[in-house]
Amino acid sequence: MRLTMYRVLETSTGKKRGMSLVFNVVLVTIITLNAVAIVLHTVESINRKHAVLFRDFEFFSVMFFTVEYLLRVWVSVENEKYRNPVWGRLRYMVSMSAIIDLLAIFPFYFSLFATDLAIVRILRIFRIFRLFRISRYSHAVRLIQRVVADRKEELVLSVMFILFMLIIVSSIMYYVEHPVQPRTFSSIPATMWWGVNAMATVGYGDIHPITPLGKLLAGIAAMMGIMLFALPTGILTSGFLEHLRLQKGARNYCPHCGKEI
Amino acid sequence: MRLTMYRVLETSTGKKRGMSLVFNVVLVTIITLNAVAIVLHTVESINRKHAVLFRDFEFFSVMFFTVEYLLRVWVSVENEKYRNPVWGRLRYMVSMSAIIDLLAIFPFYFSLFATDLAIVRILRIFRIFRLFRISRYSHAVRLIQRVVADRKEELVLSVMFILFMLIIVSSIMYYVEHPVQPRTFSSIPATMWWGVNAMATVGYGDIHPITPLGKLLAGIAAMMGIMLFALPTGILTSGFLEHLRLQKGARNYCPHCGKEI
Amino acid sequence: MRLTMYRVLETSTGKKRGMSLVFNVVLVTIITLNAVAIVLHTVESINRKHAVLFRDFEFFSVMFFTVEYLLRVWVSVENEKYRNPVWGRLRYMVSMSAIIDLLAIFPFYFSLFATDLAIVRILRIFRIFRLFRISRYSHAVRLIQRVVADRKEELVLSVMFILFMLIIVSSIMYYVEHPVQPRTFSSIPATMWWGVNAMATVGYGDIHPITPLGKLLAGIAAMMGIMLFALPTGILTSGFLEHLRLQKGARNYCPHCGKEI
Amino acid sequence: MRLTMYRVLETSTGKKRGMSLVFNVVLVTIITLNAVAIVLHTVESINRKHAVLFRDFEFFSVMFFTVEYLLRVWVSVENEKYRNPVWGRLRYMVSMSAIIDLLAIFPFYFSLFATDLAIVRILRIFRIFRLFRISRYSHAVRLIQRVVADRKEELVLSVMFILFMLIIVSSIMYYVEHPVQPRTFSSIPATMWWGVNAMATVGYGDIHPITPLGKLLAGIAAMMGIMLFALPTGILTSGFLEHLRLQKGARNYCPHCGKEI
Repeated sequence: MRLTMYRVLETSTGKKRGMSLVFNVVLVTIITLNAVAIVLHTVESINRKHAVLFRDFEFFSVMFFTVEYLLRVWVSVENEKYRNPVWGRLRYMVSMSAIIDLLAIFPFYFSLFATDLAIVRILRIFRIFRLFRISRYSHAVRLIQRVVADRKEELVLSVMFILFMLIIVSSIMYYVEHPVQPRTFSSIPATMWWGVNAMATVGYGDIHPITPLGKLLAGIAAMMGIMLFALPTGILTSGFLEHLRLQKGARNYCPHCGKEI
Repeated sequence: MRLTMYRVLETSTGKKRGMSLVFNVVLVTIITLNAVAIVLHTVESINRKHAVLFRDFEFFSVMFFTVEYLLRVWVSVENEKYRNPVWGRLRYMVSMSAIIDLLAIFPFYFSLFATDLAIVRILRIFRIFRLFRISRYSHAVRLIQRVVADRKEELVLSVMFILFMLIIVSSIMYYVEHPVQPRTFSSIPATMWWGVNAMATVGYGDIHPITPLGKLLAGIAAMMGIMLFALPTGILTSGFLEHLRLQKGARNYCPHCGKEI
Repeated sequence: MRLTMYRVLETSTGKKRGMSLVFNVVLVTIITLNAVAIVLHTVESINRKHAVLFRDFEFFSVMFFTVEYLLRVWVSVENEKYRNPVWGRLRYMVSMSAIIDLLAIFPFYFSLFATDLAIVRILRIFRIFRLFRISRYSHAVRLIQRVVADRKEELVLSVMFILFMLIIVSSIMYYVEHPVQPRTFSSIPATMWWGVNAMATVGYGDIHPITPLGKLLAGIAAMMGIMLFALPTGILTSGFLEHLRLQKGARNYCPHCGKEI
Repeated sequence: MRLTMYRVLETSTGKKRGMSLVFNVVLVTIITLNAVAIVLHTVESINRKHAVLFRDFEFFSVMFFTVEYLLRVWVSVENEKYRNPVWGRLRYMVSMSAIIDLLAIFPFYFSLFATDLAIVRILRIFRIFRLFRISRYSHAVRLIQRVVADRKEELVLSVMFILFMLIIVSSIMYYVEHPVQPRTFSSIPATMWWGVNAMATVGYGDIHPITPLGKLLAGIAAMMGIMLFALPTGILTSGFLEHLRLQKGARNYCPHCGKEI
């Protein structure tokens, strides 16, 4: 029976595939409804009308997630990786996936004793990650994961380089604009708020240079920003292409001699 | 005669190619003029001057489109897919293309009895899609269609991932900025308006964080947005490349027997 | 002597290469100075101080460009394409390059009789295109030209598709926002000003939706804009890759059998 | 002993690899702390509280960097390139890396005699480039460097082309908007501030056209900007792909003899 439950909860292929799909659809629906509830809960007018509904749904969700969590811990020993009844279960409980599940229910029990911690409620949204485990998208998820993992070094470097240029540009801008606009460009950290929005080409308009030199620098920063952000785009694209080639590379056979090429 | 009409209306190759081209140019011209009329119709000063012209052109367009629609239904049985005189025609009438054509003329007849429904007039613009059927662009349209269809899973996933990050970022931002700006960041849905414009780097400037923590989060969101939007770009580019390679793939040789494959 | 002059003026390789380079550097310098003069001329404080200098440089430039134009017409018959003394020269005079050269000097002579036409002075900047003919960059220019020419159909289609979506989105937005903001969203053309800035993620902040439905639509428009603008990026990238492969493809030889591959 | 010191200071592989790593971590930590200090130093409230700490850390950093600089000059002769005791050291001192190191400590000694030059303090941040020498990232750095070097011509051309279009668009916009908004679009250089932010899609909102013709031009400029900035993205991506293919190129076979090439 534990094996059956394991198949329903954790696998999306093989036996009990239908049951597993049904369970996953129910789970994803409840998680999505939770996300909707968390978002709508903050709209004053809606919250006032449906306060009881929100509280009841909150209670129901936490109960459902608690039972699910306990079941997952119970059946975890069916997994090759967590064979040992005690240590295996403990090792499952410190896995990324299990911690996210626990964080989603923990705040509720905590709030029974302490005051409400609004920010921890967001943790429940992270459970939406489960959505990506549905088999239909698992292929695409794995492709994206592998490409990002493969190009990790180049991507980290791009981000580091962007951060580095951000500090340089903001520092120079501070010394250029501070004497003229001492309140908006009050410090380098304040100027970095301008810097990040200039290089990412957001431009809210609450802070921008007014001196000719500052404007010249801002123009260079905007162009540089686009060039710098072209790096991760190029890196990701080349990664996608290589993976797609590898996938199809193994499947090519010569129609004349029949050998793999 | 029905076959001749079919060739003029529906095909852009083979016999009656010249007639078909002439008809398509006339059709596209009328559709384009309709788009122009719909757009200019809303400019007060132009509408006041040429009110009669707009009304007459509206009447003429609807008549033209009605005759065209009836003809298309009549000749549809010439198409392999809609052979049956009754069921074939009905099946043609529920095809995407025919529904759009009907929606373009329906509002006019409806408004004879009911009040004017301004928004449905926009449906007429959708007929501009016919523009893409002109043979000159049909190759490029098909290429783009195939690439998008081929990469559908990855593209849907990218959009889902962007939406997911949007909810997470907006939820956190709400709890950070709400206490300081209770009116602008009034709820999570209101904060999502900030979120989408920050991640897409639009930045209208009507809503932006003012706390240091909020600004840090906004900077991270802007960078993350660019990275996330690099995913669909990379996916589309790799898709284009693969399709172009398949088309020109004739240059591959087997390493074992040396023959072209 | 006409041949020598032709080599100096028109070719950047072969005999008289040194002379040609010197002449090109002088020409590009004068064109660049013209661009600087045209730009700085509009700064009130600079114009007042150096009014005489600007006028003299204007006169000198036009004289130089006039002599150069006449010489180019004179030597044009040395070119294979324009052999005939009369018709060849006339055909050269209606070539793109010659027309730009003429447009750069024409306004000056015209203004001796008529009033000053400020906007035509900009035509002189177009001569900066000559800059791209310097041999160092000619390879890169040709690469970019070929890629754009090769992908012309797809690029035109992308632009058409962007324009089409712009009309659709702006029309819907007009009917959503007009009742609430009748002055900013006064007509569909006015709303298209919002539309183009939303889809290109500029966001000046002078016009943006305030209704929830309008904000939802604006969010979709921003995301759609990024996706749509990813199309030309992907198309251009794939074009670059293919050309680079073709260039290198012809140069590959097998080290074992020596045959081209 | 000089050789040992050389290995610790300059190499990150071979003998003394462990020592070298420890030294590099210490160096990068001090440089990073310097960057943090330079940034936080400008925040009034923090500077007032920790003025002594900032001064002491400044003194310590300069001492550390001075000793490090002198050691590097001393051991530079161990490098193949700088064999000669006198000329080799001098040649090392005028290398890019050594000049940056000197510029990082020079301002301090200069300020003992002269007034404080705030802007030169930024030079110290440039030392953060040393961060990129840590072996973990050296592969990725070299890849990015090679790609940029390989596509230098095309990238320079793209930037030139963007600048050229910027001048053209701004000049036309000036003549269109100047009569209506003489204060914001006061001159072509002032209009170029609009131009760069429009083409890079920043859009601060402090300057934007209000005439219909100006708005049309701004819409075209925004679209053109995205297309133009797609060029460097495409160029970089194709560069990345080619380099990665060269690295993995071992999988190519000759179609004639079937051997690997």
